[in-house]
Amino acid sequence: MTIPLRDPDMHFASDNAGPAAPEIIEAVVRANSGYASSYGADGFAAEVQDKIRTIFAAPDAVVYLVATGTAANCLGLATLCPPWSTIYCHRESHIEMDECAGPEFYTGGAKLTLLDGNDAKVRLDSLETALDSAAPVGVHNVQRGVLSLTNATECGAVYSPQEIAALTGAARHYGLPCHMDGARFANAQIATRSHAADLSWRSGIDILSFGGTKNGLLGVEAVILFDPARAWEFELRRKRGGHLFSKHRYLSAQMSAYLENDLWLRLARRANAAAKRLSTGMAANPSVKINHQPDANMVFASWPREIHRQAFEAGARYYLWPPNQPLEGNGEEMLSARLVCNWTTSDAEVDSLLEILAG
Amino acid sequence: MTIPLRDPDMHFASDNAGPAAPEIIEAVVRANSGYASSYGADGFAAEVQDKIRTIFAAPDAVVYLVATGTAANCLGLATLCPPWSTIYCHRESHIEMDECAGPEFYTGGAKLTLLDGNDAKVRLDSLETALDSAAPVGVHNVQRGVLSLTNATECGAVYSPQEIAALTGAARHYGLPCHMDGARFANAQIATRSHAADLSWRSGIDILSFGGTKNGLLGVEAVILFDPARAWEFELRRKRGGHLFSKHRYLSAQMSAYLENDLWLRLARRANAAAKRLSTGMAANPSVKINHQPDANMVFASWPREIHRQAFEAGARYYLWPPNQPLEGNGEEMLSARLVCNWTTSDAEVDSLLEILAG
Amino acid sequence: MTIPLRDPDMHFASDNAGPAAPEIIEAVVRANSGYASSYGADGFAAEVQDKIRTIFAAPDAVVYLVATGTAANCLGLATLCPPWSTIYCHRESHIEMDECAGPEFYTGGAKLTLLDGNDAKVRLDSLETALDSAAPVGVHNVQRGVLSLTNATECGAVYSPQEIAALTGAARHYGLPCHMDGARFANAQIATRSHAADLSWRSGIDILSFGGTKNGLLGVEAVILFDPARAWEFELRRKRGGHLFSKHRYLSAQMSAYLENDLWLRLARRANAAAKRLSTGMAANPSVKINHQPDANMVFASWPREIHRQAFEAGARYYLWPPNQPLEGNGEEMLSARLVCNWTTSDAEVDSLLEILAG
Amino acid sequence: MTIPLRDPDMHFASDNAGPAAPEIIEAVVRANSGYASSYGADGFAAEVQDKIRTIFAAPDAVVYLVATGTAANCLGLATLCPPWSTIYCHRESHIEMDECAGPEFYTGGAKLTLLDGNDAKVRLDSLETALDSAAPVGVHNVQRGVLSLTNATECGAVYSPQEIAALTGAARHYGLPCHMDGARFANAQIATRSHAADLSWRSGIDILSFGGTKNGLLGVEAVILFDPARAWEFELRRKRGGHLFSKHRYLSAQMSAYLENDLWLRLARRANAAAKRLSTGMAANPSVKINHQPDANMVFASWPREIHRQAFEAGARYYLWPPNQPLEGNGEEMLSARLVCNWTTSDAEVDSLLEILAG
Repeated sequence: MTIPLRDPDMHFASDNAGPAAPEIIEAVVRANSGYASSYGADGFAAEVQDKIRTIFAAPDAVVYLVATGTAANCLGLATLCPPWSTIYCHRESHIEMDECAGPEFYTGGAKLTLLDGNDAKVRLDSLETALDSAAPVGVHNVQRGVLSLTNATECGAVYSPQEIAALTGAARHYGLPCHMDGARFANAQIATRSHAADLSWRSGIDILSFGGTKNGLLGVEAVILFDPARAWEFELRRKRGGHLFSKHRYLSAQMSAYLENDLWLRLARRANAAAKRLSTGMAANPSVKINHQPDANMVFASWPREIHRQAFEAGARYYLWPPNQPLEGNGEEMLSARLVCNWTTSDAEVDSLLEILAG
Repeated sequence: MTIPLRDPDMHFASDNAGPAAPEIIEAVVRANSGYASSYGADGFAAEVQDKIRTIFAAPDAVVYLVATGTAANCLGLATLCPPWSTIYCHRESHIEMDECAGPEFYTGGAKLTLLDGNDAKVRLDSLETALDSAAPVGVHNVQRGVLSLTNATECGAVYSPQEIAALTGAARHYGLPCHMDGARFANAQIATRSHAADLSWRSGIDILSFGGTKNGLLGVEAVILFDPARAWEFELRRKRGGHLFSKHRYLSAQMSAYLENDLWLRLARRANAAAKRLSTGMAANPSVKINHQPDANMVFASWPREIHRQAFEAGARYYLWPPNQPLEGNGEEMLSARLVCNWTTSDAEVDSLLEILAG
Repeated sequence: MTIPLRDPDMHFASDNAGPAAPEIIEAVVRANSGYASSYGADGFAAEVQDKIRTIFAAPDAVVYLVATGTAANCLGLATLCPPWSTIYCHRESHIEMDECAGPEFYTGGAKLTLLDGNDAKVRLDSLETALDSAAPVGVHNVQRGVLSLTNATECGAVYSPQEIAALTGAARHYGLPCHMDGARFANAQIATRSHAADLSWRSGIDILSFGGTKNGLLGVEAVILFDPARAWEFELRRKRGGHLFSKHRYLSAQMSAYLENDLWLRLARRANAAAKRLSTGMAANPSVKINHQPDANMVFASWPREIHRQAFEAGARYYLWPPNQPLEGNGEEMLSARLVCNWTTSDAEVDSLLEILAG
Repeated sequence: MTIPLRDPDMHFASDNAGPAAPEIIEAVVRANSGYASSYGADGFAAEVQDKIRTIFAAPDAVVYLVATGTAANCLGLATLCPPWSTIYCHRESHIEMDECAGPEFYTGGAKLTLLDGNDAKVRLDSLETALDSAAPVGVHNVQRGVLSLTNATECGAVYSPQEIAALTGAARHYGLPCHMDGARFANAQIATRSHAADLSWRSGIDILSFGGTKNGLLGVEAVILFDPARAWEFELRRKRGGHLFSKHRYLSAQMSAYLENDLWLRLARRANAAAKRLSTGMAANPSVKINHQPDANMVFASWPREIHRQAFEAGARYYLWPPNQPLEGNGEEMLSARLVCNWTTSDAEVDSLLEILAG
């Protein structure tokens, strides 16, 4: 895999800001030949489904492609929970924080019940307490709906298959289905060295948003329904949501190339390795405090404001996280930041930033 | 006002379980004469609006009648906040706990942001923190929508006009409109000895759900829009929600009688006085712990399980609150209860319960 | 049954404008004694369900009370059809014309497919054509959802059990459930001299809005689910729609009295008889043209504008129908009107109008 | 512009089935270099807006990119009309027939009022009648909402600026905003030889779905708001609908290349010319009946079933339209078809089909 030449910038703002992998671009170019039936009847779509079934050891799984993570999550959740129910999720999850009430819109007005836990991982007892105390007065309150986990989490930590199984087991105790936001599923799989099946259906996940965009695609996410019973409902929801592509072949081509020869895992491995190099370097620096378990391709850490100013001046790009910390003020105060690596992040880039942090 | 004879039961389960006041029944009977134009064009409706304008010193207010508190709240909130925004409310508020995601349904998928504070009263700093940290990433998250306060609260405490003004001021700082769930507004007015205007628009409330059902009506709530600009939108929302009554005169008649000669205040005064007698008696009993400020017509208190058992056996009716506390078990353990008085609660009834609690 | 004294007005504007029957008022007064559990756990509700099960010979039917016909229809339809489907109904049906897109709101955005037929009765071939040509392109269009019939229709005609069965049979051919808007079900039953079961479940109706308000109640409609499988879903939809009454006993009391000793049929018989007298008189008048089959309690007819002016001057009240016909203009031109009788309409009242029409 | 080699097939199934133009692919490849800010803050987006402002002579227009026509239409309509209103559109429009109630979903339950007219063009008097008779009973019915026109229409005809202005004028008489589904706007512009401004805002259009996908893009549509007042609302609707792309640069790059050097017009000109050649050839064939005015890139025509069979056997691909006409049966019966040309349709391809039709 050739990495294209890039600016010497230290670009850690987002894995959404990086380029697509060359294999993906080539696949799109190849797909652009002659005619292809529209709306998913393109042959490529079936090929993608076959590959995913193999990778996930799930011969009955049904797979749909959409172009954004919000679409994948919202359509999946709406398929799993009725409007009068609640979605159990971490209070820092993407579906709560970053989808502008998309889940509420797509479900027709369900609620989100916000759970606690370090590193944006749902703590089992927080889920259990919420489930046990839910729906105490019958028809007056929302009913238990669905559990939604994010792997890797918004804070860059990962769930092991065992952790997932424990959480979905608690949900299953009340008969709830389970959804996973896997916008960074590949990163989680690399980090946990697990089989895709163990991270999903074998641990109780019913519908998985299997991300591609943050990991080298132009813009494709697969929604995997491990139980085909709700497939037709999902299709109708996708269509009326405006998420069925007429020239669907370009989505299929990307996802097919992504799954070919483990490209998806190779890309995620690079991103994770860069983050590992970054967090290891930071851990050796007494001025830096690491704020979350840096399992995947993101590092959350704090260091003095003055050094942030130097980093930005030197061209580093990343977000202060939470975003409302002022850059002006006492130089010694610790400000926290989010640093995201992607498949193009080079060692040199990481080392440049570490050098600045070392003062 | 004649109180009808009742069972000697100690009935503290709910102000929804008590009867309507005789004046209300008489008004319904009187209204049932000959023809009346349907859907609110009945003459009575205008009369109700005039009375409310006078009581609230709000000559421009527009008033609509509906039959349930959930309808009143949801329609009012939907009129004030768009689907991509959030409703700031206490985490124990009725709109969060007891309306089965009705606000989410009526708003088209808005969120509720849950605030803290004792006695189900929103604490100013909890609101301010939530407002200040809201919408940090532009289009990605829900926008600030509306503040919703409940007076009297679900825990029987009340806000003074000053407290309301401080909270609505914080909301107004961000340009937000303010809603009040006044299912027990009359009780709050009696408790605070305030003018209705001071408890509402003069303290920054834009739309008030002015309750009647819990205070002696068969089933009528008035929604008061202090700003007439959104009146037509409200009417359309009411109609398509199925909350516009064809034989509207029976709603009008009830509300008109309720507002005549301060009936609404007299009824609330009786309920509050009964609760006062109850909480005062409890305060003198060392085995009883009062859990919330008993300002209005409800008392939340704890006492030993064994005495709960005796009370229930003696015929007392009330809810253990929260509801999932088992009646079986160690007799000395404290269980908490909610006791609600209404306009028919007699001194004898209160004293009977106090006697049991005294052992 | 004593009919209260009324103005000598000829009031044919609406059955919503007439008074409630004295038995109903008495029932409400009786219900207003002591405490009753709220939200339908009042004992009365079970009594109502039992009566309806008996009347409809439907021992498994589940019955819910709401206060408006729009609520009854919208909640029933939403329970029967998903958001990506369409409701087959007559283009002059109440759900299309008079509920301000309430069905679209409650279903979460379903469509209405408008059918043709005289007297607001769906013509079988119009339904069959619509069904056969529906959903031609799979996921791209809405799916077949539910059939909704109105009996008596908005034009005062009725369906016989055989006609209903033919229409529901066509729907059943495609696996569709069937809904009936029975706001004037009692009038239809009297007109067709049928058994309630034959007009509903035995002819293929799954959910019936069984009206009371237009036929002498203050404001109660029963929603009858002949199949209990969707009962819990209905309850949750009712609650979050704000249509579950806390002081539910007053709804139960009305409906219970309505069903007692055939009161509902006696009231409807009176209304139908008055309409019969009216249409018979009109048929004998060569200046009057009857526009729809006057089966139930409504008469749609046309006569010269000048005579309309005389009728209004003499105090008659009714709507020109459609409403946008100007009263000013050439006196010989025929204008059409809707005349609605209710249980209080007297022979004298009818005869007074007939006399005016006779010139 | 080099046209890639294709099969000798006669492919007239859909302009969605053809490939993207090479300039578009090149633009995507170029865009895939280094980092670009996500979610539209990519620089390219501003460039696209500038180009559209210039082309449309609309310096205040605000432009948003989405990936599907359904998203473009639904988001635009929801921004223009509230849930209690109705969308006036042709009964064969895409928003009615092919979006699975997406408009109902995005608007929160608005209606569509279906209008008549040949060639899927709204006839002025059909619109006027519908508008004049709308909302006769105030709050009971949906209100007038928005007019939506499609240019070129689903039947391949086009509106001239004068025709658009007459229709939007009728809507404006009632204060309604106007939307245009311009999935084939480029084809309409070529066909009418009009200025883009004359086909849109100068003729009264407020929001235009400016299509690209059917005319050579991978999947991008621009939504143009000629009035910036509702831009922020649109952005929030787009986000919560899941239609805001993280790697937005790939949408921008396509649209920017599309607008460069009139590529969009050159592509449409080719498609229209192919359709012209086809319809001209058909007109000379007495066995063929042309069913709609073939103004743009589609031809709707009928010919004997036997010749359809020969065409399909020879490899021609197109849809019988409507789709439910059986290919089996009497060979002389006329079946109707839809034939769509795109920018790659060659003269040879057209001539091959014409030859078959000539027998």
